[in-house]
Amino acid sequence: MADTDHAQGHRRRVLILGGGFAGIGAARKLKDADVDVVLVDRNDFHTFQPLLYQVATDLLEPAAVGHPLRDLFHDQPNAAVHQATATAIDPEKREVRFEEMTPIRYDHLVLGLGAQVNFFGVKGAAEHAFPLYTLADAVRLKEHILSRWEAADRDPALIDDGALDIVIVGGGPTGVESAGALAELYHSNFADDYRGIPQDAAHLTLVEGGPVLFSMFKPDIRAYTEKALAKRGVDVLLGEIVASVEPTRVTLRSGKSMPAHTLVWGAGLQGNTILDSLGLDLQKGRRIGVGPDLRVPEHPEIFAVGDAAWITDSETDDVLPQLGSVALQAGEQAGENIGRLLEGRQTSPFRYQDKGTMATIGRGAAVIQLRRGKTIKGKSAALAWGAVHLALLSTGEDRAKAVVDWTWAGFTHERSARITVPT
Amino acid sequence: MADTDHAQGHRRRVLILGGGFAGIGAARKLKDADVDVVLVDRNDFHTFQPLLYQVATDLLEPAAVGHPLRDLFHDQPNAAVHQATATAIDPEKREVRFEEMTPIRYDHLVLGLGAQVNFFGVKGAAEHAFPLYTLADAVRLKEHILSRWEAADRDPALIDDGALDIVIVGGGPTGVESAGALAELYHSNFADDYRGIPQDAAHLTLVEGGPVLFSMFKPDIRAYTEKALAKRGVDVLLGEIVASVEPTRVTLRSGKSMPAHTLVWGAGLQGNTILDSLGLDLQKGRRIGVGPDLRVPEHPEIFAVGDAAWITDSETDDVLPQLGSVALQAGEQAGENIGRLLEGRQTSPFRYQDKGTMATIGRGAAVIQLRRGKTIKGKSAALAWGAVHLALLSTGEDRAKAVVDWTWAGFTHERSARITVPT
Repeated sequence: MADTDHAQGHRRRVLILGGGFAGIGAARKLKDADVDVVLVDRNDFHTFQPLLYQVATDLLEPAAVGHPLRDLFHDQPNAAVHQATATAIDPEKREVRFEEMTPIRYDHLVLGLGAQVNFFGVKGAAEHAFPLYTLADAVRLKEHILSRWEAADRDPALIDDGALDIVIVGGGPTGVESAGALAELYHSNFADDYRGIPQDAAHLTLVEGGPVLFSMFKPDIRAYTEKALAKRGVDVLLGEIVASVEPTRVTLRSGKSMPAHTLVWGAGLQGNTILDSLGLDLQKGRRIGVGPDLRVPEHPEIFAVGDAAWITDSETDDVLPQLGSVALQAGEQAGENIGRLLEGRQTSPFRYQDKGTMATIGRGAAVIQLRRGKTIKGKSAALAWGAVHLALLSTGEDRAKAVVDWTWAGFTHERSARITVPT
Repeated sequence: MADTDHAQGHRRRVLILGGGFAGIGAARKLKDADVDVVLVDRNDFHTFQPLLYQVATDLLEPAAVGHPLRDLFHDQPNAAVHQATATAIDPEKREVRFEEMTPIRYDHLVLGLGAQVNFFGVKGAAEHAFPLYTLADAVRLKEHILSRWEAADRDPALIDDGALDIVIVGGGPTGVESAGALAELYHSNFADDYRGIPQDAAHLTLVEGGPVLFSMFKPDIRAYTEKALAKRGVDVLLGEIVASVEPTRVTLRSGKSMPAHTLVWGAGLQGNTILDSLGLDLQKGRRIGVGPDLRVPEHPEIFAVGDAAWITDSETDDVLPQLGSVALQAGEQAGENIGRLLEGRQTSPFRYQDKGTMATIGRGAAVIQLRRGKTIKGKSAALAWGAVHLALLSTGEDRAKAVVDWTWAGFTHERSARITVPT
């Protein structure tokens, strides 16, 4: 529980805000340190964000992608987990305030709060677009899509109104992977589920503001991706930007407009508003600039990691992307550095180990770009993708679940759930 | 879709309200009949109700117990499924009206609507009790219990206020199975998850108005059940009736009162209010009395089956219990009889084949009562229980999932999910 007196007394306390890859990495690294670790997240689970699009497209169940945070620390006696929402950080008092519990004081603070979706002020987007950053987002999107198909089944006039049409915004991993998985869902599953609705009645459109999809990948991967999406019936619009979103229509800046009851927003993040309470000058996307050892220069007892941080690679001077692998490694480095400080040693700088980037477009169609520029595409990439993601999922139990779901999907083209539990 | 003109034209139409065991049984039996089958349910899934308590206690995920209705009819070309909520039945016009779509006319109607929970007018029960009849009920109960533990973790003063205490009402299968599974959840899982909360801080109380638990079972099974519950720390109060339910307190008619933030209501059902539109004299529990061939005497083109029906066994004259096995068999008989009528043949009376009744109290502790009065208790019953329920789950995929979840639970004492996705 939240004990405000504890921090001054005996053991020092590391408070970690956020149980994502960054927060988990930091907490685990402190397992053997002589310190109390307190991890607080607004949810009672860790989210395996790279697979959220699979929840949204009903290939995985929520529980395969969200793992109980408490489970992850059964074997770490110096760590406590609380479910609460931080409302303010007070660096002077060295304490964090929460909506549901008394403040917690800290000696070291790790900010692994993730980000919020950035709608860039696009008219109607905050009200009508479906982001895909949290597990709740993924469940909400899935249930919305199912509800639109059920509505069109009851009243086919809704098909021309765009009930089944989806516009996906953003040509990065979230947008491309979602578009590919939606195409599979539509053509493999809904074709059987809704026999009365013609196969060509539903349109999927991927909109990207820049000139290419997957700008972080090499040209051969981009070409493969565009072909794979086209083969799956996804229309790709490049150099187009969304101007406004209405419940049943999307309008682009070019003037083009299309019916669509669903707009998936995979196009941008910004820092959590709680960061304002720190009074820092934030970087682009409202991220916290950190030094090479991941400390916030103005408050050397605070570390920022993950999507919340603006981390410059200490070798290349590039700003590191908001990826799970960066978050995990940076979290581990923050934990390592806190351990060093506790022992009176110096911190060490963060160096990101790029183990390659992968994405999947559909069954048997994935892409991998390794560190030295080597690329893999197609079935062998899909196999590697499956193996790596299985290895990354947190526990044996989740692994078993994922195997069941994926094996079935691979062999039978069946999806796992496709149900909507009313709430 | 809902086509009001179709019924008069060419093929005759069987409309089935409800996709539970009864409705599914009726629809499947009509697979080869020369008739259009239309099945409508308010949800897009079939619920395997006997395992709802496992969802509520987080041993199974919702998708393991709810199966997409459309999936079940991929191989039945004469069947259509719609998700809609019936609002009225008009036996004169032979049509059913819905909240979300145009009316559907029928030649034969099967009422497999299930039931609603009956709170018997107990003060505060409708507002504060947690029933366990639908999948949404199960998810809601699970999330409530998790939220109470998280709250007590943040503020231990809530423990004395009853945050962790649960009163379970009803000594039938729902109450007993829930009590046993909650005890396992509390002692096996929460002990690890909430290390700061003492093991004896949480109280589970099962309240039954009659003199015994499991009145439908033989005395040796009852004795075993009481012992198994006591061993798991469940207090059993017999001959006690709940007088009022408040958010944090339960009061019994005897005057006894106890703190509890959770009251699980496993104590009674009543017919769906939509049955009022039929203008029939309903039986006890607002169930529809049917003839031996399951037809409603006043409207021979309407069949009533499942929890909605008051079915008298044609051999023993006993009223059949509201069990999944009765619902499934009665549904099949209704389908069979409609098929006979379509062919100009006579209907045949329903005879329930009792294949035994089973229930589980905890890991390795189940009870089975076979038709001829033979009973099985303990580990061998638990194994048989697992095998039968696996066989009953609708498809291979669900079977695989259930195996994964159950095997893990059995070997590691780990639960499957224990997460709350905000909605």
